[in-house]
Amino acid sequence: MSAPTKPQTPNTAELPGYRVELGVDEPLHLDCGVPLGPFTMAYQTYGRLNEAKSNAILVCHALTGDQFLAGDHPVTGKKGWWDVMVGPGKALDTDRYFVIGCNLIGGCMGTVGPTEINPAKDRPYALDFPVITIGDMVKAQKLLIDHLGIGRLFCVIGGSMGGMQALDWAVRYPERVFTAVPIATAARTSTQNIAFHEVGRQAIMADPDWCGGNYLIEGKRPHRGLAVARMGAHITYLSETALHRRFGRNLQDRKNFTYGFEADFQVESYLRHQGVAFVDRFDANTYLIITRAMDYFDLAEEHGGGVLAEAFQGTEVRFCLISFTSDWMFPTAESRGLVHALNAAAANVSFVEIESDQGHDSFLLDIPEYHKILSGFLAGAADHLVRCGTKAPSADG
Amino acid sequence: MSAPTKPQTPNTAELPGYRVELGVDEPLHLDCGVPLGPFTMAYQTYGRLNEAKSNAILVCHALTGDQFLAGDHPVTGKKGWWDVMVGPGKALDTDRYFVIGCNLIGGCMGTVGPTEINPAKDRPYALDFPVITIGDMVKAQKLLIDHLGIGRLFCVIGGSMGGMQALDWAVRYPERVFTAVPIATAARTSTQNIAFHEVGRQAIMADPDWCGGNYLIEGKRPHRGLAVARMGAHITYLSETALHRRFGRNLQDRKNFTYGFEADFQVESYLRHQGVAFVDRFDANTYLIITRAMDYFDLAEEHGGGVLAEAFQGTEVRFCLISFTSDWMFPTAESRGLVHALNAAAANVSFVEIESDQGHDSFLLDIPEYHKILSGFLAGAADHLVRCGTKAPSADG
Repeated sequence: MSAPTKPQTPNTAELPGYRVELGVDEPLHLDCGVPLGPFTMAYQTYGRLNEAKSNAILVCHALTGDQFLAGDHPVTGKKGWWDVMVGPGKALDTDRYFVIGCNLIGGCMGTVGPTEINPAKDRPYALDFPVITIGDMVKAQKLLIDHLGIGRLFCVIGGSMGGMQALDWAVRYPERVFTAVPIATAARTSTQNIAFHEVGRQAIMADPDWCGGNYLIEGKRPHRGLAVARMGAHITYLSETALHRRFGRNLQDRKNFTYGFEADFQVESYLRHQGVAFVDRFDANTYLIITRAMDYFDLAEEHGGGVLAEAFQGTEVRFCLISFTSDWMFPTAESRGLVHALNAAAANVSFVEIESDQGHDSFLLDIPEYHKILSGFLAGAADHLVRCGTKAPSADG
Repeated sequence: MSAPTKPQTPNTAELPGYRVELGVDEPLHLDCGVPLGPFTMAYQTYGRLNEAKSNAILVCHALTGDQFLAGDHPVTGKKGWWDVMVGPGKALDTDRYFVIGCNLIGGCMGTVGPTEINPAKDRPYALDFPVITIGDMVKAQKLLIDHLGIGRLFCVIGGSMGGMQALDWAVRYPERVFTAVPIATAARTSTQNIAFHEVGRQAIMADPDWCGGNYLIEGKRPHRGLAVARMGAHITYLSETALHRRFGRNLQDRKNFTYGFEADFQVESYLRHQGVAFVDRFDANTYLIITRAMDYFDLAEEHGGGVLAEAFQGTEVRFCLISFTSDWMFPTAESRGLVHALNAAAANVSFVEIESDQGHDSFLLDIPEYHKILSGFLAGAADHLVRCGTKAPSADG
């Protein structure tokens, strides 16, 4: 056996931002039956919470996101994953709103998860960390919102798996949510998406350096398996049109085929880079656990006895759903199904399908129409709050 | 190191069917610059070659196919991959036509490839076997057709990568082909398909048991990596609709989630089975080499100076193109692009898009409209041959 190498997970205790202990008095009861707590949640805030605490927006992140929405990311050195969306004058206008990003439970950026120390064993949880659900993520976030003293979120928003959390919030805690914006998402994970998740998980678990989940304890990292998982998933985030326009069949730094297995094509080089960069910032067991949480998500089954509209009965949450024309992982049909169910429940719902050829990743991008619709929806909701006598959700409110 | 285990590649010398030595007088000059020969090609025939040798149909197989088109497969024990299509009274009617299936060069079912013995080293070629192209496959097949004394194929037909070979045949040896039937294919491999191939290759090469390609020599097999590659590819062969209808979110032999990483969902169990079954009949290096050959395929670039229509200038081959509505790997747009180019070259071309929700795998299936169109096209082409004074392409001709 080779000598243990230093695990490359960032030392999350040194990350900037806030950390809070939650579940202290009462543990969080996870859907799998395991109690979790006390546990740490790492979060970031942008903008200022007004006195009425009426201007808070909770941003729920997707599979590989984290709490660092905007500005420089302390681990990657790149911009936060929603820097185009969160900031002064942007759609989630931090001159007006108090924007909260928190790392999910099960994550790997400071919130409790497989890479954090399991106090019962004084070593990383690894796969002693339980398999969680989207509902568990939301229940943990709700403890954070309680901690911040926010009675009702002005908005809960997220794309992809973040949108699943936004939906779960609206259904689980309708009185705590004024508006919900589920973007590029679905009320349940499709068969095809479960299938792609399973391939990614098998790639990780096939890597001998995964060590049955105990790689951190063994001083190894399943880099190859995690990179393969990321490469496969990355294709699904893009449209064929976007891939073709960006890379076509262009060769990478060469004029002729090598008749070998180097990255002859630019798209190969790009995917390899995506894989390599990913393993430096992400954890393999987190990947397993979070994809599993997505697989299990089925809003109708859990909250509507199998009927989606039942999950929304009597809701006063104002919904804005957004999908993208070229998203084949969470196609418009999924959002449309949600809209039908919301209409059947006589809910207040807006829905827009945005023209974009960038695939599922569109929700991360600076697409003017998309941002305009979002800021317009939020402004309209804020006006409604004022008309109803609540103080305006602004930083000065 | 663990003791070498017996490689599970079938002993191809014991397989039924024909084997012929080709490239004896003159080696096959591969596109990569390497001469290949003499080399063995394994093939099967169905039906009887008529005296005029005017009734021969060459079936080109796809990535994981082989020469066993119909009847029981000697390795898998299942039916041949095109048993629904090839046989008495079927679309490729063996009462009328002489149907030839041959294993591609680079394959692993008896034709020269990475699993066969490299006479220069008295051990399996492994990755000493050169990276080949679709054109190389066709050039090798042409030596077989020469060997059989067939001047002109009545038809060359194939789906997916088999369709690429059919196109290459028509362009490379137009005088040797009366009709060409490229099904569910494209004139070049798309960026997205190259990307998926690359993920599969990386999964194989990430498996330590791949041993840099020398697993047969080391007595190992990269089963885990090859299974992951197969699982990922298999998703792309099906449509989301077909996956959903077949598996939905149904659980596998259980009523509740396990909150673990067993195959909770039927679709997971199915994919795992696909992966496991595949490694018993297929070779990892062959998978690398054949996917690479697909990546390199670009008919316009190689034969038309970048203009697809130029590749078909003056062709007298009669084409019948078929695509399937739900095929997202080789969508109808690819076939339509081919039809436009053929029309621009004033070629004789029929094109049908078949309604099917089964995805790319539709080309393998028993879809009545598809088979009817195919047998109708072949019958019409046979009538035309007779009108032109050639003896009818029938077993009695």
